[in-house]
Amino acid sequence: MPTGKGQIGPELQRLIDLLAKLPGLGPRSAKRAALYLLKKREPVMRPLAYALAEAADKVAACSTCGNWDSIDPCAICADAERDGSVICVVQDVGDLWALERAGAHRGLYHVLGGLLSPLDGVGPDDLNIGRLVERARAESVKEVVLALPATVDGQSTAHYLSEHLAGCAVALTRLSQGVPVGGELDYLDEGTLAAAMKTRRPA
Amino acid sequence: MPTGKGQIGPELQRLIDLLAKLPGLGPRSAKRAALYLLKKREPVMRPLAYALAEAADKVAACSTCGNWDSIDPCAICADAERDGSVICVVQDVGDLWALERAGAHRGLYHVLGGLLSPLDGVGPDDLNIGRLVERARAESVKEVVLALPATVDGQSTAHYLSEHLAGCAVALTRLSQGVPVGGELDYLDEGTLAAAMKTRRPA
Repeated sequence: MPTGKGQIGPELQRLIDLLAKLPGLGPRSAKRAALYLLKKREPVMRPLAYALAEAADKVAACSTCGNWDSIDPCAICADAERDGSVICVVQDVGDLWALERAGAHRGLYHVLGGLLSPLDGVGPDDLNIGRLVERARAESVKEVVLALPATVDGQSTAHYLSEHLAGCAVALTRLSQGVPVGGELDYLDEGTLAAAMKTRRPA
Repeated sequence: MPTGKGQIGPELQRLIDLLAKLPGLGPRSAKRAALYLLKKREPVMRPLAYALAEAADKVAACSTCGNWDSIDPCAICADAERDGSVICVVQDVGDLWALERAGAHRGLYHVLGGLLSPLDGVGPDDLNIGRLVERARAESVKEVVLALPATVDGQSTAHYLSEHLAGCAVALTRLSQGVPVGGELDYLDEGTLAAAMKTRRPA
């Protein structure tokens, strides 16, 4: 009985095992989280169960940009005050949130849903690229900003996109200074993200 | 819009806010957890919603020992192979799990549900003490081990319990070497916990 598993009821063990899958929680912190939740059943545990089920049902990718929202088009695409002439291309929704948190971009977004990665078997058809080319062909779009990570996959994806967007009448730019080599956008401080957006340069 | 809240849909924002309440997760890691869950809707997100609701419904305190389980008496109290003559008193279920993980105790438990703490307004009536005295009066019980943290509240609770159990015909012991002063049981390594249980001494 060194794992202690036998003495935790199956419902509780199942909850702990699922909590332990969350990024940032391990087996021990999952137990602490389960104890916390059981102590806060009405204020936190039941609302969290409901919020998970509701988000799983309602939150879907925006058919225009790929952002996750419960409305389609998403709140950003539907926002008439945003600058529809600039589309910022990001790897995933976490990076979109990072740019929004920094207040670095007042235009629209396009979420690729990943990066090209031959080693992981991710090709152009696995990403939301066709819709991006379609959007970039619209007359209203003047600029596409490639806000992709400064990793090998990020840069080869940027290269692929710049080739496929060459036929569109848009200025292609990418984030410039401030993005550390090998770094992920989501971990950057807001000043760096804002500076990188301000000094973007032709792709 | 520096918080970026306005651009995350209400269902998603509610989910992130609730996840951020979990111990070990902050606002940023809650966002990462939400993104992870949305990517794993069927394998993790829906099962987690179900497990939370099920545990909130079914898991309750054992009417004998106070351990959390979906059956009453709990699996430990109902286990005929455990030594019913020794009752180990712990602060909460997390400490019970820590002792079980260490395989340090083959008897039964008693979960107080907290520690006496005049500063926080926690008195004897707020803890599961009456039931402990009742259990300790049973002829089959030979020993009560006070496995309480080596903090001021833990030690004053141990003192209070040893006074109230003085009338019962049980040997009163407490964990000995290995428990660091000011330390919480749940954070100890298993070898230390096992050693402390082995060298327990009269209270």
